[in-house]
Amino acid sequence: MRIIDEKKVSSELLKEIKQKIETEKLNPKLAVILVGDNPASHTYVNIKQKRGKEIGINVDVIKYPPSVKQEEVINKIKELNNDKDTNGIIVQLPLPKHLNEEEITNTIKPEKDVDGLTFYNLGRLFAGAKPYFLPCTPAGIMKLLDYYNIPLKGKKAVVIGRSNIVGKPVAMLLLSRHATVTICHSRTINLEEEIKQGDIIVAAVGKPEFIKGECLKKGVIVIDVGINRIKKGDKNILVGDVEFESAKSKAEYITPVPGGVGPMTVAMLMHNTMHAF
Amino acid sequence: MRIIDEKKVSSELLKEIKQKIETEKLNPKLAVILVGDNPASHTYVNIKQKRGKEIGINVDVIKYPPSVKQEEVINKIKELNNDKDTNGIIVQLPLPKHLNEEEITNTIKPEKDVDGLTFYNLGRLFAGAKPYFLPCTPAGIMKLLDYYNIPLKGKKAVVIGRSNIVGKPVAMLLLSRHATVTICHSRTINLEEEIKQGDIIVAAVGKPEFIKGECLKKGVIVIDVGINRIKKGDKNILVGDVEFESAKSKAEYITPVPGGVGPMTVAMLMHNTMHAF
Repeated sequence: MRIIDEKKVSSELLKEIKQKIETEKLNPKLAVILVGDNPASHTYVNIKQKRGKEIGINVDVIKYPPSVKQEEVINKIKELNNDKDTNGIIVQLPLPKHLNEEEITNTIKPEKDVDGLTFYNLGRLFAGAKPYFLPCTPAGIMKLLDYYNIPLKGKKAVVIGRSNIVGKPVAMLLLSRHATVTICHSRTINLEEEIKQGDIIVAAVGKPEFIKGECLKKGVIVIDVGINRIKKGDKNILVGDVEFESAKSKAEYITPVPGGVGPMTVAMLMHNTMHAF
Repeated sequence: MRIIDEKKVSSELLKEIKQKIETEKLNPKLAVILVGDNPASHTYVNIKQKRGKEIGINVDVIKYPPSVKQEEVINKIKELNNDKDTNGIIVQLPLPKHLNEEEITNTIKPEKDVDGLTFYNLGRLFAGAKPYFLPCTPAGIMKLLDYYNIPLKGKKAVVIGRSNIVGKPVAMLLLSRHATVTICHSRTINLEEEIKQGDIIVAAVGKPEFIKGECLKKGVIVIDVGINRIKKGDKNILVGDVEFESAKSKAEYITPVPGGVGPMTVAMLMHNTMHAF
């Protein structure tokens, strides 16, 4: 069993980006739209800003109160689309319920859509044409698999979760690399049977320690995207969608939580922003 | 075992469209771009034109020699995009090798893309947002399943083939209806094992009688998209990707070939064109 050292992989990637920015004297700029006071969103945006600062990417956070009007956000994005100095634009999700997330996301020009979540970029990904940018978490997962030279061709991949941000895009990326892919979700019957068949498991369901080692095939590759806060004794701790202790005896490679897929996602966002420049 | 009577379903759909066109005095127009002398393409375009005529849709075929330049086709599409009288635009595929199919397809405005193959419309389909138009073959397959009230939620669907026109979109549509979906292809190892698990099989590989009854689960629903020409004795006949004779004893529902998914695809194109109007 080997633990996938995501921090190492993401640090190396960030170092490369930093070097490129310094050597080529680039000054990429990422605009982040942040609406409301969701504490998790603020934490994630802070991490992005901090990481950007470390490597020479200017992360400009545009904050709005939770009551902001749809039109105001749309107009800001249009302004940023036309701003020569802004290379990438992202909207920190989720947005307050009264805003139309779909319209807001799709106002971003595909060439500046460094989260890869516009219909145009998702359509290119889906069709197997190279999008301007891949969604950051799925792209990060593929980088990790490649870093450890994990073969994908002909392997059975089981993706649990069908979100637009993780499950579906990662399924398409694995498929484009010739894996046979099963997409499971909350309505799947016999989930254990499906999981047992996976040479590669990508868990993105958001249920703490939901997948136990006993359901896993010996020698499986486990990519755990879940970050769930639970109480153990009197402590709050973070756990993944996979029960790490029982899974690690079955897995050939496994990502730990915390320290899981998070840092890689941020690194891919920086990577995309540099490429947008 | 019941044979899915696609001709009946497509005839009913065409009749509905015809009635709507007559009652509401509509005059929808579909522009079809046809390049070169591929006999199959000419046959398909003739069928579309004939079907259109029967129900009151003007199908205008714009023919180009195989040597036509990319720019000329692009300019024609731009003209059609702006033509108020043209409601739908399709490009008959495949195109000669020197043309860039991707650029040509994506020049079509999403609002007139009645084949549903632009990145924008595919992206909407992929993301689970309603696209302007669904690709016709996958949309036809879903109509058939619904016509026969075949339950999808929690069922295991196995899609064999991963094209942008059939395999991948039908996988996404089945997923959106809460099936658990496996996508198989030419690099799949243990294809028989995968197929054996399917409550619903969609075969779109283009290999004559490739899937035998012995690999199928009892009570399976078989949707055979393949249309393959083979020699049997001294006759040329059409067969599907599934060996019909051996499969029918296992299947609860099965589509025959010929008479398979073809007529439904054309009916869905007419349906989309009417909606474009």
